Amino acid sequence: MSEKKTKVAILGATGSVGQKFIELLSDHPWFEISELAASDRSAGKKYSDAVNWVMAAPLRRELADKIVLNCIPTLESKIVFSALDASVAGTIEEDFAKAGYIVISNSRNHRFDETVPLMVPEVNAGHLEMIKHQGYSGAIVTNPNCSTIGLVLALKPVIDNFGIEALNVVTMQAVSGGGYPGVPSMDILDNVIPFIGGEEDKMEREPLKIFGSLNNAFKVDPASMKISAQCNRVSVIDGHTECVQVKLKRKASKEELIKVWNNFSAEPQALSLPFAPVNPVVYLEGERSPQPRMNRNLGRGMAASVGRLRECPLFDYKFVVLSHNTIRGAAGGTILIAELMKAKGYLGN
Amino acid sequence: MSEKKTKVAILGATGSVGQKFIELLSDHPWFEISELAASDRSAGKKYSDAVNWVMAAPLRRELADKIVLNCIPTLESKIVFSALDASVAGTIEEDFAKAGYIVISNSRNHRFDETVPLMVPEVNAGHLEMIKHQGYSGAIVTNPNCSTIGLVLALKPVIDNFGIEALNVVTMQAVSGGGYPGVPSMDILDNVIPFIGGEEDKMEREPLKIFGSLNNAFKVDPASMKISAQCNRVSVIDGHTECVQVKLKRKASKEELIKVWNNFSAEPQALSLPFAPVNPVVYLEGERSPQPRMNRNLGRGMAASVGRLRECPLFDYKFVVLSHNTIRGAAGGTILIAELMKAKGYLGN
Amino acid sequence: MSEKKTKVAILGATGSVGQKFIELLSDHPWFEISELAASDRSAGKKYSDAVNWVMAAPLRRELADKIVLNCIPTLESKIVFSALDASVAGTIEEDFAKAGYIVISNSRNHRFDETVPLMVPEVNAGHLEMIKHQGYSGAIVTNPNCSTIGLVLALKPVIDNFGIEALNVVTMQAVSGGGYPGVPSMDILDNVIPFIGGEEDKMEREPLKIFGSLNNAFKVDPASMKISAQCNRVSVIDGHTECVQVKLKRKASKEELIKVWNNFSAEPQALSLPFAPVNPVVYLEGERSPQPRMNRNLGRGMAASVGRLRECPLFDYKFVVLSHNTIRGAAGGTILIAELMKAKGYLGN
Amino acid sequence: MSEKKTKVAILGATGSVGQKFIELLSDHPWFEISELAASDRSAGKKYSDAVNWVMAAPLRRELADKIVLNCIPTLESKIVFSALDASVAGTIEEDFAKAGYIVISNSRNHRFDETVPLMVPEVNAGHLEMIKHQGYSGAIVTNPNCSTIGLVLALKPVIDNFGIEALNVVTMQAVSGGGYPGVPSMDILDNVIPFIGGEEDKMEREPLKIFGSLNNAFKVDPASMKISAQCNRVSVIDGHTECVQVKLKRKASKEELIKVWNNFSAEPQALSLPFAPVNPVVYLEGERSPQPRMNRNLGRGMAASVGRLRECPLFDYKFVVLSHNTIRGAAGGTILIAELMKAKGYLGN
Repeated sequence: MSEKKTKVAILGATGSVGQKFIELLSDHPWFEISELAASDRSAGKKYSDAVNWVMAAPLRRELADKIVLNCIPTLESKIVFSALDASVAGTIEEDFAKAGYIVISNSRNHRFDETVPLMVPEVNAGHLEMIKHQGYSGAIVTNPNCSTIGLVLALKPVIDNFGIEALNVVTMQAVSGGGYPGVPSMDILDNVIPFIGGEEDKMEREPLKIFGSLNNAFKVDPASMKISAQCNRVSVIDGHTECVQVKLKRKASKEELIKVWNNFSAEPQALSLPFAPVNPVVYLEGERSPQPRMNRNLGRGMAASVGRLRECPLFDYKFVVLSHNTIRGAAGGTILIAELMKAKGYLGN
Repeated sequence: MSEKKTKVAILGATGSVGQKFIELLSDHPWFEISELAASDRSAGKKYSDAVNWVMAAPLRRELADKIVLNCIPTLESKIVFSALDASVAGTIEEDFAKAGYIVISNSRNHRFDETVPLMVPEVNAGHLEMIKHQGYSGAIVTNPNCSTIGLVLALKPVIDNFGIEALNVVTMQAVSGGGYPGVPSMDILDNVIPFIGGEEDKMEREPLKIFGSLNNAFKVDPASMKISAQCNRVSVIDGHTECVQVKLKRKASKEELIKVWNNFSAEPQALSLPFAPVNPVVYLEGERSPQPRMNRNLGRGMAASVGRLRECPLFDYKFVVLSHNTIRGAAGGTILIAELMKAKGYLGN
Repeated sequence: MSEKKTKVAILGATGSVGQKFIELLSDHPWFEISELAASDRSAGKKYSDAVNWVMAAPLRRELADKIVLNCIPTLESKIVFSALDASVAGTIEEDFAKAGYIVISNSRNHRFDETVPLMVPEVNAGHLEMIKHQGYSGAIVTNPNCSTIGLVLALKPVIDNFGIEALNVVTMQAVSGGGYPGVPSMDILDNVIPFIGGEEDKMEREPLKIFGSLNNAFKVDPASMKISAQCNRVSVIDGHTECVQVKLKRKASKEELIKVWNNFSAEPQALSLPFAPVNPVVYLEGERSPQPRMNRNLGRGMAASVGRLRECPLFDYKFVVLSHNTIRGAAGGTILIAELMKAKGYLGN
Repeated sequence: MSEKKTKVAILGATGSVGQKFIELLSDHPWFEISELAASDRSAGKKYSDAVNWVMAAPLRRELADKIVLNCIPTLESKIVFSALDASVAGTIEEDFAKAGYIVISNSRNHRFDETVPLMVPEVNAGHLEMIKHQGYSGAIVTNPNCSTIGLVLALKPVIDNFGIEALNVVTMQAVSGGGYPGVPSMDILDNVIPFIGGEEDKMEREPLKIFGSLNNAFKVDPASMKISAQCNRVSVIDGHTECVQVKLKRKASKEELIKVWNNFSAEPQALSLPFAPVNPVVYLEGERSPQPRMNRNLGRGMAASVGRLRECPLFDYKFVVLSHNTIRGAAGGTILIAELMKAKGYLGN
């Protein structure tokens, strides 16, 4: 790794995901934020004047004073993290890719473009090869939905070892998944909202691409698993809890499942990527685990925890998966993609 | 109905379920509380001194001043509501039944006694016949678990019209289900607890008895449906929300399902029982319904609401069921059983 | 009172205060909603299409189907309740008053107009005389801020009997006071916001006008009490809790204070106004009272509860006041003003 | 400082404060936990079997396996941290002091013993001299109540520079202050409890001893400030928020106050004690600060934050103080006392 840090820009820097990028990239060993870009409303202002900073960590002076730029492909940094709102991300990200920028995006717009990888570094690192055939001088790589990421992490070693035929998941998702201001307090205090717009579709569709296999045309043949998802919003700040049921292709004992979770390790671990948790999946003993407030920060928010494995009268097994939705599920997961790309030479030198 | 109200006693009157009985029975047209009984620790004290009253409605003077009695079968009232803790309910309820009392119980101890009905008045009123063959001079009738009741109400018209082969349910349950003091605030603020002791077993087992059929020996042949349940505690005061999936025996359209829910009516409605909601099940349109804070008081807390019916890639349909756990799911449900028994002559004159 | 109900209109009918007016006026014995008006964005639509209904009670069919009108003074109903946003209420309310309408407003814009009464019916009913000297063919009457109303109700009998020289108040206010969507959930879960824009000013200023005396010019000479207020937002749905300290002009014992609270009754009670609570102030015994979730619905949300009276090392006494901010503190309080005006002949026949 | 760590024991090791001691002392540069003691119910068991571990950090293996000892003065470690329940702390702590142990206690029992210092290291380090005159072969030093500590930290530089004549404080306290299981969830969801047993007395009394001066008899002449406190429990996990009003002895401008807060530094800072925050008090600009969820971890939970300074119509100034109640306000504050004692030679070599 070269001594000099790679300059990166953040598109959509004033929103809550943009702020999380800034919080997580402070002191990053490989990347340094050189430019912040946002909507016309913010462009031209000092970042500290444009942003309603809602992170717990204080905003650093050197970023607070930066002038917010427009989201047009005239930035100096060739690597851009996109935290753009879906209403504008589609075109802007494309414009950047066409102009030679490498766009690593947390937005949903290009996730199902057939030449764009939908990337969880521990799961489908090989899909990165797709970007050589995108037809852009730059590239677009996308991060899945926050509720998908923890789930596919937990499923990966199960699929590799035993196969999954059918998957049922019911989520209890944190309010931070709705951004800021996001979920009104009157909607969630003493309440559950049994609906999150578009979320169930994403959860039923994204794992199929992520677990799919790259064909000769450098496109993904989707996995064949059947999935049903139900998504709920609950009164939790951070951390999505998911009740999961799986029908396996091959028999597995409880001990075998727990073992493949705890032993799971992949390319990000092998490459010692800075944001890679030592154990991407941790099985927690004890019938009351995992819990969002207790376990969301496992592996500095980058690991998924699993618990309550038990036999299921309808499927083979049921268990609970938890992961941090704004770290692993958004900005942190996207940074890990960038680290993987850097380590594997996809970002140039 | 005679002019004079039937005298009832409450066993376990100081706990939160006992208090709910008192709150709900105030001004009841048929029943009047004549005696309050509780543990030795409370017996002999004035009720207002023995209780830590946590209901919103103020405690009435005439009850506040009653002396708490012991839970022994020397009470004047021949009808007793049991809100006893499971650690003592087993023997005490039996003692009362042997001594000629009719015990209508919210406790779990006798739910699976083979001569004891597990009763939801709209669902299995016919099972009341079992009490004639219990071998007690009195009788024991039980109310199911709070998370079971709303569910079986919603399933009843579906089973009657289309049959259910398999049932999957994931609950998000209110803290009041854990009694008082119950769930510590440190466990539930900004958190989900993916575990409630014994709850999943109850939900997988109770519906089979409730939906079972009475055989010639006046015992219940359990229904054959397969059930898997996962139970979670969330930061909600009252109202259990349940994500339900069903595989039907006969095809049904969405419209047909909604129709059978909205048209559902049973013996308690036909008899105009005081606590019977006009519509025991209400389908709520709109993708964000039902919600505990908005809908739990439907039918004065005695109706179940259903919403978000949609096709399921793994089962036939998925939908959300909500019901009030301390009203329909506990004291209110038990009172409705008593009303049914009174109306059908099981309580004498 | 005539048999026929008085027709009223609601300005700002789609917001959360507007919705509360609709919820509370359903089945009102004297008033009936004939028109709903809102911003240009909503005007012309069916009300059910224009509104994001967030009340617990279902929206009635006859209102759901009404076409939303513009907020211009061409309405048929001569009595209008204003739930308009402060950004537009100033001019619109004036336009209606000039055109002969009687505007009873929950907005802050005209509260300090020197000819406009700032009305809490139990406290300063006499100030209604001001409207005869407003110079409008109609009139404007205003309701104070939600955190002021409960406080002045509780202070009124104390001032009348013992006088108050200095008043210190620290509030813990419910999120519903911020409207809908209002307070973001990320701001209030596991948190307190020690700031509510403009609120402290209102609380330090409004009581002086409310407790002021009408002079010969039909204007209010403000009361002379010194007031300091600190306002906080807490994780409560409904009900503002206020820690109050008072320095009295004349000595009073604890018993005397409790007595004047419990005996307090005013013109709305004498006139048996439909929304008037029998006891506008109730002193609750017990060191843990009042609490928002337990006591906010006292007197159907129209009464203030007081508790924890104790001597204060710095002032004379300290105590806690609670009242329902969206009922007594907003729509309900405004309706009570209308009832008072009707009963006293200010609304014509 | 010697290379070898000082061995310490924890009395009351299974409770939530005991657990916090264990969490915070892991990796402490000067101290190492050698013994865990608790009630007879726990003694003899493995710690992991005796404890219901509720900390977020996992329990370390070497402590999990320790056998819990009885709270009798036969421990090897001569320094003991007491997290004992007040019902037993009085006698046990005395027994240890008599037997030569140095007891640093978070319990309230001995706080007002006239030979026992009530210690906040940045505020009254000099009071440590009292322990030489206690008449024990060991010693007892106490930590104040969690709601007192943050407050006196914030007041110290104000008193030193301008003097305080009168102090008014209204608190909004986190549930963790009530221990575990502590506050029931049914008491605090959608609620405020305007009462915490004994808390107001402590807050009105403890600052007088802490700010008092040591006389020739090595006892404390209490400060003369007048104090009134009102204490509320709110729905926050960690972090006590306090609305403070002060009447100063000498005039100060807002700028002067902010300056004395931000420049405040005391003996723990001069000695670079491991737990001492660089800035014990930090003034936060911005009208919405401080907030418990955002600012409680300032200085790793050991700093108090202050905000919203404004003139007060009744006192001179009002402002908001926030501090972490289980770190600075309990275990962390007690550890800082031990560090101060170690650095100043009170713990032997």
